[in-house]
Amino acid sequence: MLPVKYKLEKKDGKARAGEINTPHGNIKTPVFMPVGTQATVKTMTPEELEKINAEIILGNTYHLYLRPTDEIVAKFGGLHKFMNWNKPILTDSGGFQVFSLGALRKITEEGVNFRSHIDGSKHFISPEKSISIQNNLGSDIMMAFDECPPGLADREYMKDSLERTTRWAKRCIKANKNPDRQGLFAIVQGGIYEDLRDQSLNELTEMDDHFSGYAIGGLAVGEPREDMYRILDYITPKLPEEKPRYLMGVGEPLDMLEAVANGVDMMDCVQPSRIGRHGTVFTKYGRLVIKNASYSEDTRPLDEDCDCYVCKNYTRGYIRHLFKTGEILGQRLATYHNLYFLIKMMNNAREAILNNNFYEFKKEFENNYTQGKKSEWIKPKKFKD
Amino acid sequence: MLPVKYKLEKKDGKARAGEINTPHGNIKTPVFMPVGTQATVKTMTPEELEKINAEIILGNTYHLYLRPTDEIVAKFGGLHKFMNWNKPILTDSGGFQVFSLGALRKITEEGVNFRSHIDGSKHFISPEKSISIQNNLGSDIMMAFDECPPGLADREYMKDSLERTTRWAKRCIKANKNPDRQGLFAIVQGGIYEDLRDQSLNELTEMDDHFSGYAIGGLAVGEPREDMYRILDYITPKLPEEKPRYLMGVGEPLDMLEAVANGVDMMDCVQPSRIGRHGTVFTKYGRLVIKNASYSEDTRPLDEDCDCYVCKNYTRGYIRHLFKTGEILGQRLATYHNLYFLIKMMNNAREAILNNNFYEFKKEFENNYTQGKKSEWIKPKKFKD
Ligand SMILES: [Zn+2]
Ligand SMILES: [Zn+2]
Repeated sequence: MLPVKYKLEKKDGKARAGEINTPHGNIKTPVFMPVGTQATVKTMTPEELEKINAEIILGNTYHLYLRPTDEIVAKFGGLHKFMNWNKPILTDSGGFQVFSLGALRKITEEGVNFRSHIDGSKHFISPEKSISIQNNLGSDIMMAFDECPPGLADREYMKDSLERTTRWAKRCIKANKNPDRQGLFAIVQGGIYEDLRDQSLNELTEMDDHFSGYAIGGLAVGEPREDMYRILDYITPKLPEEKPRYLMGVGEPLDMLEAVANGVDMMDCVQPSRIGRHGTVFTKYGRLVIKNASYSEDTRPLDEDCDCYVCKNYTRGYIRHLFKTGEILGQRLATYHNLYFLIKMMNNAREAILNNNFYEFKKEFENNYTQGKKSEWIKPKKFKD
Repeated sequence: MLPVKYKLEKKDGKARAGEINTPHGNIKTPVFMPVGTQATVKTMTPEELEKINAEIILGNTYHLYLRPTDEIVAKFGGLHKFMNWNKPILTDSGGFQVFSLGALRKITEEGVNFRSHIDGSKHFISPEKSISIQNNLGSDIMMAFDECPPGLADREYMKDSLERTTRWAKRCIKANKNPDRQGLFAIVQGGIYEDLRDQSLNELTEMDDHFSGYAIGGLAVGEPREDMYRILDYITPKLPEEKPRYLMGVGEPLDMLEAVANGVDMMDCVQPSRIGRHGTVFTKYGRLVIKNASYSEDTRPLDEDCDCYVCKNYTRGYIRHLFKTGEILGQRLATYHNLYFLIKMMNNAREAILNNNFYEFKKEFENNYTQGKKSEWIKPKKFKD
C-alpha cells in the first residue's frame, strides 16, 4: 500500500479537483506549495503558513544535506519536528540544485560529483544517497533523483538523460527504506520533444506500483513559454489519472492556471517569495513594485481585493517605507501577501472546478491580471534558493 | 491638565511600582520599552509585540523625520496609524542621534545643523522643530530636545550644556501644539557631577507644571559603570515622586534592575534586539551565543526557564541552523525571545515590589545571571539604530 494516495473529486475539462492523503494530513488540490528551502519558508513561521492556508511545503535536499546535514535533522526526529511544521512536507531530490552547479559538478552513471556552493567541499550524490537523505529528513513525499538538463539541450542529450533518469528511478525505489510512510514521485523528462516525453512516461509507468505520483520535470528551465505550454498540454493528460501530478518550479499566476487547465494538481516555486522579498507583489491587476515613489502616500492595501492579514492592516505607503529603509518587516509582509495570493488563487481555481466554471474563472483572472497587456514572464533562475 | 499621568502604587525601598496613563492606554511600571526606530520594532509585527506584553514602544524622531518624513506620517494619521500600533508611543527628541553624528553637526544656541547619515543632505533641528516633528508623529510622550554630551565631557562643558538644555526645554514647552494629548518629558543632564545634576533638576522643576515626566539623560554614554550607578543612586530619588522617571538607553538586565532599585520606572534600549539579530540571547544563566557549534544538536529551548512562543516551539539546534544559514526567521525568533525576556523580567520586578521582596528577587536574578562571575557590560553604541 502506497503511503500517499490521490482521490479525484471532479473534472472540468482537463482541470482536476482532488485530494491527496499523506501521513501528515490531507491536501486539497490543485495546490500551491511554498518552498522552505533551508527548513524555513523564508521570513515565515509555521503558524503564519497555517494562517495563509498552506497545506504542504517543500524542503530542499541539497541545502539540508549541506546544512545542518540530514543526519542532524534525523537526530531532531526529522524535518517536521526540526522546523516545527506538522503538516505534509515534500522534499526534492537535490538533482535540480546539483545540476545547476554547472562547472562544479560531474555526472556519471553512478551519480553526481559536485562541490558545495558554500565552501567548495567535495560531495557525491547518487540515487541511493538522495533517497537516504530524504529518508533521514522524513518527508511525506520524496522525489526520485533525476537528471534535469537545460531546457534547450539537444535531442540526443535529452534521450540519453531521460533513459538514465529511468534507471536512476529504479534505484530510488530500491533504496527507499520507508516505503510505508514516505511516498516516492517519479519525474517525467524529455524536454520539449513529445516522443521523448512519451518514452519517459512509458518507461516510468512500468514501475507505477512503486510511485505515489508523477512530476513533470524539465519545464520552466529556459525553454520558450510556448514550448512549455505545448508540452504541458501534450503530456499532462497522459499521466496516470489516479495519481497526483506535480509541475515543478512554476509560480507565475498565469502559468499556474494554464497548468491547472491541463490537469496539474501540485506546483511550487521560490519566485513568489523571492520577488516579495525584493518588493514586488501580486495584485488582481498584475504585479506592483512597492518601492516606486508613487506609493509613498498611498493609503490603499497592496491589493484592494485581497483579504489577507497584510492587506487588512497595512498601507502601500507604510510597506514602501519599510522597503526603503531596509526593514525586515517589509520582506515579511510582502512574502506573506504573495504566498497568500497564490494559495487563494489555487483555492478559487479549485472552487471553480467543483462548480464547473474553471475556464470562465481563468479567463476573468487573466483579463484582470494582464489588463489587456501581455503578461510578464518570470524568468527561471539558474539556482533555486 | 497634563495628558500623561502617573500613579504610584507601592514602594519597596526606593523601587516603585506604578501606572502611567496615556491617551492610548495604560502602562504598568517598571516597564521596558522596545524601540521601533523606523516605525517598526525590527523584525516584529504589532501583534507579536502585544503577545510579548509590550505596553509602550519608542519611535525615533531623527529617523522618521528623514524617512518617510513626519509630514508623510501625519498624512497617514500619525505614527500609531502609520505602523498599526494602537498602544502608547514615546518619541525621542532626535537629539541623541543628531549629536552622535559628530563631525556632521554643529551646535548653536538656536539649534543644530547637521547632515543626514543617509545622503549627506543638510538639515536643521531646533527645539521648535523637534516638537513640531513629534507633534506630526502624534506620540503620547514627547521628549524635550536636549543636548547630550559625551559621558566624559569636562565639567565646564557639562554646565554650559545643561543650561542650554534648560533654555531649550522652555522653548519646547512653548512649541507644543498638542499639550492636551501629547505629554512632554524633561531631560535631566549634568553628566557624572552631582551638583550639576542638582542644578539641572532644579532649573527644570521650575517648569514642572508643564512636564508629564522626567528622563535621566547622559548616562550609559561611555562613562564607567560605577559613575552611572553613583549618579542613578544620587539623582533618581530627587525626581518628583508623582511623575514617571525614565532612564534612557539602558537595556542590560543587571543595569535595568539596578535602575529599578533606584526608583526608575521606564527604560528603553536597542541593544536587546540588536544582539538578538546577531544571535546572542538572554537566558536565566546569562547570555548565550547561539551560533556556537556546541548548540548544533542541542534540543533544549534558548532558555529552559522561559515560557515564550520561541522557547515553547523551537530548539537551540534549529535556531542555530537558521543563524548559520542567514535565515530571517532566526533573527525574528531571537529578537522575540530577548524582548520577551526583558519585559517578563520587569513584570517580575513589579510583582516583587508589590510583594515587598524586590531586593531578594534582584539578588536571586543576579546570582543566576552572573553565576558568580562579573557580568558583561553592554558597551553603549555611538549610534542608536
Ligand atoms: Zn494581501
Ligand atoms: Zn523565550
